[in-house]
Amino acid sequence: MNNNKLKITFLGGVGEIGKNMTAFEYNDEIIIVDAGMTFPDDDLPGIDVVIPDITYLLANKDKVKAILLTHGHEDHIGAMPFVLKHLNVPVYGSRLTLALVENKLKEYKDIKMKAIAVKPKNVLKIGSFVVEFIKVSHSIAGSLAMSITTPVGTVVHTGDFKIDYEPIDGVMTDLPRFAEIGKKGVNLLLCESTNVCRKGYSMSERAVGRALEEIIKEHSDQRIIVATFASNIHRMQQILDLAEKYKRKVAFTGRSMVNVSETALKLGELTFNRENFVDISKVEKMDDKEVLIMTTGSQGEPMSALTRMAAGEFKTFKIKPNDLVILSASPIPGNEKNVYNVINALYKLGADVIYDELADVHASGHACQEEIKLIHSLVKPKHFIPIHGEYRHLKTHKELAMALGQEERNIILPSIGMQIELGPNSIKQSGFVTAGQRLVDGFGIGDMDSNVLRERKQLSEEGLCVVCVNINNVAGEITSEPFIITRGVVYADEQESFVQDAKACIIASLKEADLRGVEPSVIRQSLRRNISNFIFKRTKRRPMILAIVTLD
Amino acid sequence: MNNNKLKITFLGGVGEIGKNMTAFEYNDEIIIVDAGMTFPDDDLPGIDVVIPDITYLLANKDKVKAILLTHGHEDHIGAMPFVLKHLNVPVYGSRLTLALVENKLKEYKDIKMKAIAVKPKNVLKIGSFVVEFIKVSHSIAGSLAMSITTPVGTVVHTGDFKIDYEPIDGVMTDLPRFAEIGKKGVNLLLCESTNVCRKGYSMSERAVGRALEEIIKEHSDQRIIVATFASNIHRMQQILDLAEKYKRKVAFTGRSMVNVSETALKLGELTFNRENFVDISKVEKMDDKEVLIMTTGSQGEPMSALTRMAAGEFKTFKIKPNDLVILSASPIPGNEKNVYNVINALYKLGADVIYDELADVHASGHACQEEIKLIHSLVKPKHFIPIHGEYRHLKTHKELAMALGQEERNIILPSIGMQIELGPNSIKQSGFVTAGQRLVDGFGIGDMDSNVLRERKQLSEEGLCVVCVNINNVAGEITSEPFIITRGVVYADEQESFVQDAKACIIASLKEADLRGVEPSVIRQSLRRNISNFIFKRTKRRPMILAIVTLD
Repeated sequence: MNNNKLKITFLGGVGEIGKNMTAFEYNDEIIIVDAGMTFPDDDLPGIDVVIPDITYLLANKDKVKAILLTHGHEDHIGAMPFVLKHLNVPVYGSRLTLALVENKLKEYKDIKMKAIAVKPKNVLKIGSFVVEFIKVSHSIAGSLAMSITTPVGTVVHTGDFKIDYEPIDGVMTDLPRFAEIGKKGVNLLLCESTNVCRKGYSMSERAVGRALEEIIKEHSDQRIIVATFASNIHRMQQILDLAEKYKRKVAFTGRSMVNVSETALKLGELTFNRENFVDISKVEKMDDKEVLIMTTGSQGEPMSALTRMAAGEFKTFKIKPNDLVILSASPIPGNEKNVYNVINALYKLGADVIYDELADVHASGHACQEEIKLIHSLVKPKHFIPIHGEYRHLKTHKELAMALGQEERNIILPSIGMQIELGPNSIKQSGFVTAGQRLVDGFGIGDMDSNVLRERKQLSEEGLCVVCVNINNVAGEITSEPFIITRGVVYADEQESFVQDAKACIIASLKEADLRGVEPSVIRQSLRRNISNFIFKRTKRRPMILAIVTLD
Repeated sequence: MNNNKLKITFLGGVGEIGKNMTAFEYNDEIIIVDAGMTFPDDDLPGIDVVIPDITYLLANKDKVKAILLTHGHEDHIGAMPFVLKHLNVPVYGSRLTLALVENKLKEYKDIKMKAIAVKPKNVLKIGSFVVEFIKVSHSIAGSLAMSITTPVGTVVHTGDFKIDYEPIDGVMTDLPRFAEIGKKGVNLLLCESTNVCRKGYSMSERAVGRALEEIIKEHSDQRIIVATFASNIHRMQQILDLAEKYKRKVAFTGRSMVNVSETALKLGELTFNRENFVDISKVEKMDDKEVLIMTTGSQGEPMSALTRMAAGEFKTFKIKPNDLVILSASPIPGNEKNVYNVINALYKLGADVIYDELADVHASGHACQEEIKLIHSLVKPKHFIPIHGEYRHLKTHKELAMALGQEERNIILPSIGMQIELGPNSIKQSGFVTAGQRLVDGFGIGDMDSNVLRERKQLSEEGLCVVCVNINNVAGEITSEPFIITRGVVYADEQESFVQDAKACIIASLKEADLRGVEPSVIRQSLRRNISNFIFKRTKRRPMILAIVTLD
């Protein structure tokens, strides 16, 4: 029993980047909003993706009634295959969002999703929850906010949003509906915080279209290659419209660009005369001024199409001096160096390059300070929780809400695993549940332990030395020459003298000891210590030492 | 002989970040401008610093007459210990620049530098070269541009600079002198390119002071901790002045902050009443509003004082809720995540944090587009070479020069190792010399080869598996159980079953083969292939395999 309180549990998306996931629980019913993943940074070598730990949900498996998706970005749907495997409950979202989840599920034949498509203004009853979906603008089509009415009052969850007065699909973030819901009384607002540190308003997506049109007009004799986020359907639509206007055929390349555009075309989220598409294999023979190529790789991702073009390793065509490459994106923090390396390489191939530092070729999909203030003023919530951001964003969002008149005691700054109890007139932190990140690597889903990572890190920073000796511990002597392999420790031209001296060191240290009757594990230990000291003296490095002692 | 041409050789700082170094050669005389280093990125695990390859200079050792230093940043002086070791020629620079080199040399007892301090407007004759030093503003005091008059005409080298109309030291970038030299005729301009992609003008250092004053006034009851670049003496001066004005004692922490401030105070580049300093060990007992702490770590560097404070691991005092931390710096590309992690951690300790996204607490030391245009218009060079930047900066600088009327044939886009011949009325690329980066790791100065790095990278991403078997290749049989170690491959709870199955796989594959008379190297190869396939099937990973075959 919950004492008639609504429990809100944060399994991701608060105090960190990516992997958003929140559970709303009333008595024996749970609904989940979003199930995202994130990409690891350099501290996790070899890890492919990071997903939320759902131990808490698995322990309450029978309560879980539904998953609601705000939009189709990876940090909101990326963990769906892993979550559905254990919790195959009905999934609600816009048609595009659900189609993108279905695309991901193609690799998992055993998972069938119970998908229920919803539209803005739709109202659903799921147990004690009444959920209304609200149209919002964002950098992907089909984005939804939610108003969740519960026995303790209404909760508004903004999802990711911006306020765009000239939206590409013609339908604005539904400010009147936010106002109506606010007027009826909102108990709690959960509002995204990504751009809360940025003053003013976000740029309209339409402004990007205008900048791109100027560039395409000005470079009318050049072949044009545009890299952008595959999921930004509205950006894609603007580029397709410009291609049509300026009589260029469009070719897609990069797996996600091809997949997402195909999905969006089928759903009618993207409209284009299919006759104006051309296969990427044909572009090399076409007139430069008749082609526009849309590609992935705007973040300089190592194996992406654009990165391979920049490296001269793209098969179907080569970058040449009459090419203009537009990176219609901003580097996500952490990707700057990769992006700049790609730009440098494209320039070296003689291409012209235009990117966000040089022109307005990208607009963020997240609300800036003034837009966030507008939502707060319309929704007028009793209580407030900032979500979606690093701790610094949540903290700044809290300060912004207080500046708007929200009292500090009615705000909670959430963190991973935190459980919050909401009553009709009260909010409090009630505890923490198991939560955090699960690491996915190759086939080892969510089970990578920190030992493995620590070992990889040591190997990468200090290298490795394997020592192998064969011993007769009855006679107490070495019966074969020691065998030594190093990796990442010694320079090529020193290798020979290094190995010779290391062998001498091993033999000397073993000869000194009395080996008769000694356990191999003891010999191994002393061997490891001796060779480690030898290497440190010689190279100032502490590689991982693997000592192997075999007995005759 | 040079055919009466000036040869310019680029050993660093063109087409990449950091390690600036250029050689000017006329007949049998060479002068070098700058000798910088850079810090490696994640592609070079375990590498400490990267310095220029000076093979070309060593091959022409007898010609080298002097090293001229523009300013004391690491990317201009960091390689000095390594260069002086081989080329102990006279070194010219401002007093502060030379003092910072001397600080570095303390670790190298065997190197004595012949240092000659110069001031703006000083003119020196070095062989056929006449060098005049010109005052410029930059984010370190004592920065100099140079006009180098040679038998083929005058070359202007800007060093790093900005145009600050309210400089902290009261002396502006010497625009009149640039104009006079330009009027007399300049054959070649080498101009820095760091901020050439930024429109408009750089912010004045004085504006940072005004923003800091507002913040310090507003937080008069809090303890204040300011992190900034230790080398930014003018920033430090402004903060010291504010501390004095608002009656706070100043404590320094962080090795480079302590060293550089001490050096600058001795030279009179920094002025402060020493009675107002307080030792860092005392601050814990002082009243919050009477303290201002200056620290290193504004880039979130892993072992820096601020990072340790954020982690709660700083010994002399602890961050607490009444602290205000100001990061008076911008993250250098690549450092964003580290910086944001530090900010998040400081917030979590309850401190207030102000950084460049929230207020104007940092100004760049590099000229933006309009400032660069001004220098071009004053110097009016016959020929132009953009320097100091990645390729994208050099390319954009070339386009800017052409927009100002410079003809394309009079511009050369340099790259590492490129040699350029300058005549009175001609410029051309004449070839390439050995150049590039030398990696410094532990004691292995400049000798780290790429194999070692490739191995470390594979180890870090995929892990390692060592397999050891003992074979009698006369009888053709295995004489001991195979020995297997993995690191960074298998999860702890799967280790046992993995090793068992791997052993079975090895035994089966060896039994299948006819081992009689087979060389160990052949057995090793097949063993490596079999175990690699086994591991890939099971884990989808490709660890480094070390196979050791010993014979009875």
